[in-house]
Amino acid sequence: MSIVVVGSVAFDTIETPGRRVDRALGGSATYFSVAASCFVPVGLVAVVGDDFLDDHRAVLVSRGIDLEGLAVVKGGKTFFWHGRYGLDPNERESIATELNVFENFRPELPSSYRDRKWIFLGNIDPEIQLEVLEQSSGESFIGCDTMNYWIDRKPEGLREVLKRTDMLFVNDEEARFLSGKSNLVKAGKEILKMGPRGVIVKKGEHGAFLLMDDFIFYAPAYPLEDVTDPTGAGDSFAGGFMGALAAAGEPKGETFRKAMVFATASASFTCQDFSIDGLKNLTREKLEERAGELAGLVAV
Amino acid sequence: MSIVVVGSVAFDTIETPGRRVDRALGGSATYFSVAASCFVPVGLVAVVGDDFLDDHRAVLVSRGIDLEGLAVVKGGKTFFWHGRYGLDPNERESIATELNVFENFRPELPSSYRDRKWIFLGNIDPEIQLEVLEQSSGESFIGCDTMNYWIDRKPEGLREVLKRTDMLFVNDEEARFLSGKSNLVKAGKEILKMGPRGVIVKKGEHGAFLLMDDFIFYAPAYPLEDVTDPTGAGDSFAGGFMGALAAAGEPKGETFRKAMVFATASASFTCQDFSIDGLKNLTREKLEERAGELAGLVAV
Repeated sequence: MSIVVVGSVAFDTIETPGRRVDRALGGSATYFSVAASCFVPVGLVAVVGDDFLDDHRAVLVSRGIDLEGLAVVKGGKTFFWHGRYGLDPNERESIATELNVFENFRPELPSSYRDRKWIFLGNIDPEIQLEVLEQSSGESFIGCDTMNYWIDRKPEGLREVLKRTDMLFVNDEEARFLSGKSNLVKAGKEILKMGPRGVIVKKGEHGAFLLMDDFIFYAPAYPLEDVTDPTGAGDSFAGGFMGALAAAGEPKGETFRKAMVFATASASFTCQDFSIDGLKNLTREKLEERAGELAGLVAV
Repeated sequence: MSIVVVGSVAFDTIETPGRRVDRALGGSATYFSVAASCFVPVGLVAVVGDDFLDDHRAVLVSRGIDLEGLAVVKGGKTFFWHGRYGLDPNERESIATELNVFENFRPELPSSYRDRKWIFLGNIDPEIQLEVLEQSSGESFIGCDTMNYWIDRKPEGLREVLKRTDMLFVNDEEARFLSGKSNLVKAGKEILKMGPRGVIVKKGEHGAFLLMDDFIFYAPAYPLEDVTDPTGAGDSFAGGFMGALAAAGEPKGETFRKAMVFATASASFTCQDFSIDGLKNLTREKLEERAGELAGLVAV
């Protein structure tokens, strides 16, 4: 029951009012796979340059992440992002985005990945997401992320992806933009009409909800007093969700609910430390403990 | 186990993109008492002018609301408010606020109210809230509402009130302004240091949370696709909370949790119709049903 994730691996320079880290291991597929690896083995499909060192590789391998699908472009540089957060961690400014080798990323699934039951399409060009789907057996449970950039520029490709998506992950702003509805429940219902079996709307500090035809589930965020670095919170949310689902084996109501709580827990650990430091030593046991706390927050 | 509420009774003219109602019965104490009356009898302490007619009175009396404490100023006019909501119901513009007889409101508790166990201080001048506390036996459970206007202009009076408050009701913006903290959990903890035993932070469509020294509880909002008129949502939230608590008899952990869910349910019914129309025929049974739905939204 292992998962394949296709997305970005990057170096992130992150500034917050209290600290700066330079060229830390980041990228959506990195956060996703480290979080999901608390539950099941993960196969990572991404691209890096030859500035991606054995040390970086070792961090991922130590988490049981398979790197067969990690392409290395000789003489190329790894995707680089530099961001700065304000006193309010919801305020983020992108100072530099250098796509580098990621610009021409054409993911190729290793043959052993092609019949995997669980696939997550990170936030990349919908046309590339479609290429990944073409390479899979068609029997998979497909999780998918996107963003306003693609909703705006590749609406047709995205529509095709959504028809083949089981669970779409968007934030509130993306849900509104994709659906044209400001009310988030309406937005979610509109998105379901586009094809996905379910949609998860992430609302940052206000938690997230999962909407499907036959049910709706709310997970409040874990009440953190200090958000150290929210980078990757959404990706690790998706990783925790897909990981918990894959570990449970069956995508249905009860497992979706539990997966939402594990997803929330994963995102909270990410926010508590810089870069992937909050996830690196995370275990399923720690997630179970926090999931118990989260259940206690809402139990009547 | 009846409740006393002190606050405003008003006429509201409300405009939304779809409809306008003129001089409908409103005011914080009205919403509070109609919601609370689903659970227990309520004594309303407020002031109106002689434009307040028998029909208005009848609406309240039919809900089991005692009007012994409703002062009538002869020749005076009742508090009037005119507001307009945008397409986004979170956007509200005040077009007119005429305090009229409310400007010189000095509430006087009927003698039979003075030893009531449950008192709610609506959003009025903290110095007047203190006068109400002086008139009560001192053995009551005190709920209290306030707003940025009083936090800014009457900080000392408000501090005194908070020392004697059991449960403070504020929205996210007020919590931040009162505490000087932008993180809402930190804000809540800072507010607890000011004296209240508990603080409820209302976040509109994102729900509300209750913070006390020994616990925290989250209640997501009821997922409404259409918000008809959010006027009075916060007041009916408080009414549902205090009503459920008074009906349970004992202010402790489990009853607080249930009261939060009933409060959320009350606010949702308010938002579903204009003015107090969503509350007028509300029963405890309907609230129980919605509370069950709300519990289902978060049950893992």
